[in-house]
Amino acid sequence: MRQWGVFGSSRIKDIEVLNCEYGKNTIKFLRLHREGKKHFVKEVEVCTHLRLTSAHEYLDGNNSLVIPTDTIKNIVLVLAKKNGIPTLEQFAIDICKHFMTTFCQVAYVKTYVQEVPWQRLHENGVPHVHSFICVPDGIRFCEAEQCRNGPLVVFAGIKDLKLMKTTQSGFEGFYKNEHTTLPERKDRILCGELFCKWSYGECKDFDFDCIWNKIRECILEAFSGPPDCGEYSPSYQKTVNSIQMLVLSKVSQVQVIEVVLNNTFYNVVDMKNLGLTNDKEVLVPVETPYGSCACTLGRKKFLEAQGHVLKDERQSQFGLATAQGN
Amino acid sequence: MRQWGVFGSSRIKDIEVLNCEYGKNTIKFLRLHREGKKHFVKEVEVCTHLRLTSAHEYLDGNNSLVIPTDTIKNIVLVLAKKNGIPTLEQFAIDICKHFMTTFCQVAYVKTYVQEVPWQRLHENGVPHVHSFICVPDGIRFCEAEQCRNGPLVVFAGIKDLKLMKTTQSGFEGFYKNEHTTLPERKDRILCGELFCKWSYGECKDFDFDCIWNKIRECILEAFSGPPDCGEYSPSYQKTVNSIQMLVLSKVSQVQVIEVVLNNTFYNVVDMKNLGLTNDKEVLVPVETPYGSCACTLGRKKFLEAQGHVLKDERQSQFGLATAQGN
Amino acid sequence: MRQWGVFGSSRIKDIEVLNCEYGKNTIKFLRLHREGKKHFVKEVEVCTHLRLTSAHEYLDGNNSLVIPTDTIKNIVLVLAKKNGIPTLEQFAIDICKHFMTTFCQVAYVKTYVQEVPWQRLHENGVPHVHSFICVPDGIRFCEAEQCRNGPLVVFAGIKDLKLMKTTQSGFEGFYKNEHTTLPERKDRILCGELFCKWSYGECKDFDFDCIWNKIRECILEAFSGPPDCGEYSPSYQKTVNSIQMLVLSKVSQVQVIEVVLNNTFYNVVDMKNLGLTNDKEVLVPVETPYGSCACTLGRKKFLEAQGHVLKDERQSQFGLATAQGN
Amino acid sequence: MRQWGVFGSSRIKDIEVLNCEYGKNTIKFLRLHREGKKHFVKEVEVCTHLRLTSAHEYLDGNNSLVIPTDTIKNIVLVLAKKNGIPTLEQFAIDICKHFMTTFCQVAYVKTYVQEVPWQRLHENGVPHVHSFICVPDGIRFCEAEQCRNGPLVVFAGIKDLKLMKTTQSGFEGFYKNEHTTLPERKDRILCGELFCKWSYGECKDFDFDCIWNKIRECILEAFSGPPDCGEYSPSYQKTVNSIQMLVLSKVSQVQVIEVVLNNTFYNVVDMKNLGLTNDKEVLVPVETPYGSCACTLGRKKFLEAQGHVLKDERQSQFGLATAQGN
Repeated sequence: MRQWGVFGSSRIKDIEVLNCEYGKNTIKFLRLHREGKKHFVKEVEVCTHLRLTSAHEYLDGNNSLVIPTDTIKNIVLVLAKKNGIPTLEQFAIDICKHFMTTFCQVAYVKTYVQEVPWQRLHENGVPHVHSFICVPDGIRFCEAEQCRNGPLVVFAGIKDLKLMKTTQSGFEGFYKNEHTTLPERKDRILCGELFCKWSYGECKDFDFDCIWNKIRECILEAFSGPPDCGEYSPSYQKTVNSIQMLVLSKVSQVQVIEVVLNNTFYNVVDMKNLGLTNDKEVLVPVETPYGSCACTLGRKKFLEAQGHVLKDERQSQFGLATAQGN
Repeated sequence: MRQWGVFGSSRIKDIEVLNCEYGKNTIKFLRLHREGKKHFVKEVEVCTHLRLTSAHEYLDGNNSLVIPTDTIKNIVLVLAKKNGIPTLEQFAIDICKHFMTTFCQVAYVKTYVQEVPWQRLHENGVPHVHSFICVPDGIRFCEAEQCRNGPLVVFAGIKDLKLMKTTQSGFEGFYKNEHTTLPERKDRILCGELFCKWSYGECKDFDFDCIWNKIRECILEAFSGPPDCGEYSPSYQKTVNSIQMLVLSKVSQVQVIEVVLNNTFYNVVDMKNLGLTNDKEVLVPVETPYGSCACTLGRKKFLEAQGHVLKDERQSQFGLATAQGN
Repeated sequence: MRQWGVFGSSRIKDIEVLNCEYGKNTIKFLRLHREGKKHFVKEVEVCTHLRLTSAHEYLDGNNSLVIPTDTIKNIVLVLAKKNGIPTLEQFAIDICKHFMTTFCQVAYVKTYVQEVPWQRLHENGVPHVHSFICVPDGIRFCEAEQCRNGPLVVFAGIKDLKLMKTTQSGFEGFYKNEHTTLPERKDRILCGELFCKWSYGECKDFDFDCIWNKIRECILEAFSGPPDCGEYSPSYQKTVNSIQMLVLSKVSQVQVIEVVLNNTFYNVVDMKNLGLTNDKEVLVPVETPYGSCACTLGRKKFLEAQGHVLKDERQSQFGLATAQGN
Repeated sequence: MRQWGVFGSSRIKDIEVLNCEYGKNTIKFLRLHREGKKHFVKEVEVCTHLRLTSAHEYLDGNNSLVIPTDTIKNIVLVLAKKNGIPTLEQFAIDICKHFMTTFCQVAYVKTYVQEVPWQRLHENGVPHVHSFICVPDGIRFCEAEQCRNGPLVVFAGIKDLKLMKTTQSGFEGFYKNEHTTLPERKDRILCGELFCKWSYGECKDFDFDCIWNKIRECILEAFSGPPDCGEYSPSYQKTVNSIQMLVLSKVSQVQVIEVVLNNTFYNVVDMKNLGLTNDKEVLVPVETPYGSCACTLGRKKFLEAQGHVLKDERQSQFGLATAQGN
């Protein structure tokens, strides 16, 4: 356990530093690559955070080891210029490696990279050499992080993916008591915004673009089922699990996978007092409150190799997460 | 000129009512249509506003002619149930017609309809019978409005369409004085969010879906130019005009067209003091402040038939528009 | 009627330019003023738009008269440096005057200014010399605009002002038909977001800060009624009107006033099937859809001097307003 | 370590469930309390999440133990009706206790409560009996959580608190290398959005309102320093620490405190090429990218009693946090 008492200040002798990190958020830039007349764009938003080996800057106002966030931004841009962005993941890895190898005062580095979803325009099927349209049907992101003397680990994911199926979904046989007013349903709309993040474990030489596309396909397939008939979902939870199981069965590089599904309920409008029968033809989305379910699965072999702690056995007493809500 | 003095209240004898309208905004619902196992969805957000022939409810608190906004919502949902949503425009027309024919106290009705961009999912090219993904690459909307004894007029449009071209754009030969610091540029990125709205004039029996798709194609084509080489844009203004001219030349049903292009400037990062040459490879988007240009063009024949007033000749002194900004 | 045929392009001989304007939006800056150790801040967001006397830049790509939006930004910053921001309104006036007197190619200029609501911090009642907190309980804004050879007119307003009264509000005696399901209510919550904008008419030497504060007080007073008992509101419309009438009766400088009230309905939760009686103790806000009512009143003398056109007599056929919704 | 192999499904024999929770988010409601003519409002937004003792619903689609999120919502509303909301914290505690004592299948419960910042209106200093204005100058929130057989722990906090000081801030003596371009500054603006969350440890009978107000005062005092002169801040980090140290020294009930300060840099506009000297009078806020610094401090005695793990010694390999960014 690291003790901060070495700083000797009587003001803080009974106080311990549990975490202190800082960095630059939303470093937005476009990396343009040209091959003759054909242009390729990668626009990203990068966040890079550091934890230093001491906390002097916090406790004593001594900045001598502080790498300014302005310098962090410069380094991100310089690396983009020098290396390009072969994949989001490789770029995040490059950034982490740079900080860890260049600055001995860095104890921990984390980099998040998110992509602006530009797609090449096509005219009558012909790809345009330099024109693009923004198509935000799910946002790709990744993270890389490293502690000094620890492995460089890599995550990737998709967020803001909105999906809907208009049948093959129900919710029955749930627990009931005096506070239950929800009726059982055999046929409802299932609609939600999906967040999916997975860990590749230690950084390896993967084809990150290919894997990401494969996982996106798995998500869509597990969500919707066969195109001619779909597949029945007994709950949002089961759909979450189906997505995870399909990814784990088809993509061996994924070690841990988390899926969060925030669901919008569609309420069939009761039109009796308007003299009409509404056979699930007109439905109103209920955006607040909304249900949310989240599950994290991991491969046993991987987890055992790490000696991990299950969430059941700890609470977030001092890992004070940021506030929920908007 | 309508005088409100008839209400006889001494408090208001020197005051005139310039406008009073009310309505229901963001009536969101999903209209589900089934053909056997195949499902079709149309999710929309509707705003319907009315102006009544009197202003008693404002001036005297007399509600006897007020159609509650809750009733407005019910009517919108009932019409969706009864008529379906063949096209956004037809649905807006249906709503306006209903209010104008049902309620003699309605002096004016306006309806705005915006679509949630659900697209059918495909698995290996096979369309799914009931699964959809949200793809917000430009939002389709329309408006219909009618004054009592006036024509029902119809508008349509696209908004939140983000486009970029990475070359074939410059800005030179502009007006310069002591406050000019912008250098001339022959080769820059042109990027912006496009808003386009057009008038069909009086309501007619058009194929609104087909026209809308054709106009979207015109916008993309005029913005980007031929796929193998693009077309040089000397300014955002000229690009706006090119879009309008192409639409007007190819789509005879459009009588008036407005285009607003809010542009994001991409600043080439100066890396000299970082020891590097940046040949437009790393660029930073400047999101605030941003430039905006807007142009409205109309067909002379149409305008002359209406006896219109040009904006040059009036200011917005009492047509108090809502605040800009967020 | 201005004809664009003089440009002689055969492509556009049947087309008329109804409007073309451009400008810079969200020019954000802080103006810091020091008096010894005491600091005064004014942080604003400015939008300035121009219409030029010709439309060559749109039609021909000729930029020779175009004042770049970057120059517009520079001018706004230079004026802030030279003149300070005595009031938002005076600053907007300064900007309009500058463009109209400096550039003969400017046919019309409009400037919008919005304030970031910094308030001086107090410690135990003592004002701090240089520390501030952001308190967004209603945002102050103004607009100024001028056509060449026309008057410079000034508007001001408040937006995003959220108010609630928990009683003294009802809605009864409204129009009913087969689509009415809303019950009458004698006692409900009235809650909404208020937008209020007024015209001072031609620019004069007013104490804009003093008037703005007085109007804000009128709004709060008319909304809530006497502090010990309130005042009954029979509808949102009547509350809107009460606000307008109080402002017009107390503030002679206001010539025209628009109020928009977007209301959030609070639904009393039915707890019967949960075995409880809910005497308006637990209420759920209904955020979508929401009702909106808007009214614009003007002083007759002022309007008659302008020879204005009532909204009843025109529709927005070519004054294509921007899309509603988000 | 909990093994999910008991479910016996061969599909998942190599997979472990690291976490699975679900719940209802943004349960918004108003709790109205009346004392004669005087009304008191508490509008809140509640999120309640559960983890069950089994994961059958995820793995097998067996819903028999699942308490629907609709029931969770009902319970939150019923508790609000029965108990009122004496304080946010007490309400969060009530919710957690209810779930833990009522449902034996609940392994873990967490509740987040956020307040809508309604303030009573005053007219000429007289408080209004039933009218309120929304004043979002920092949002109050709290959390309570409990594992079965574990303590009920309580957190509270403030977010979205925007503060600025226009002097008494600098940044000097920082680490420099070839990627450093930031100049040292002795006098700059310090401006940021503050997030502060603290732990009370195990649930006790505190005066939560009084403590929260005291902590808010500490934050403002430590940020701004004495009202007549302020106090010099050598970095954002040191300001964060000053806030934490003041809270810890003045509020004995706080065991752990996290502060995150997201800072907006104000760039002094270079006006040389516009022929002007700008003595920090006109400054432009740089909103992206932005710096962020975060620190968590805890009392040693409290931490030692918990046997905690420092962040240095673990990475977030399977505690897959949600994506950063917007």
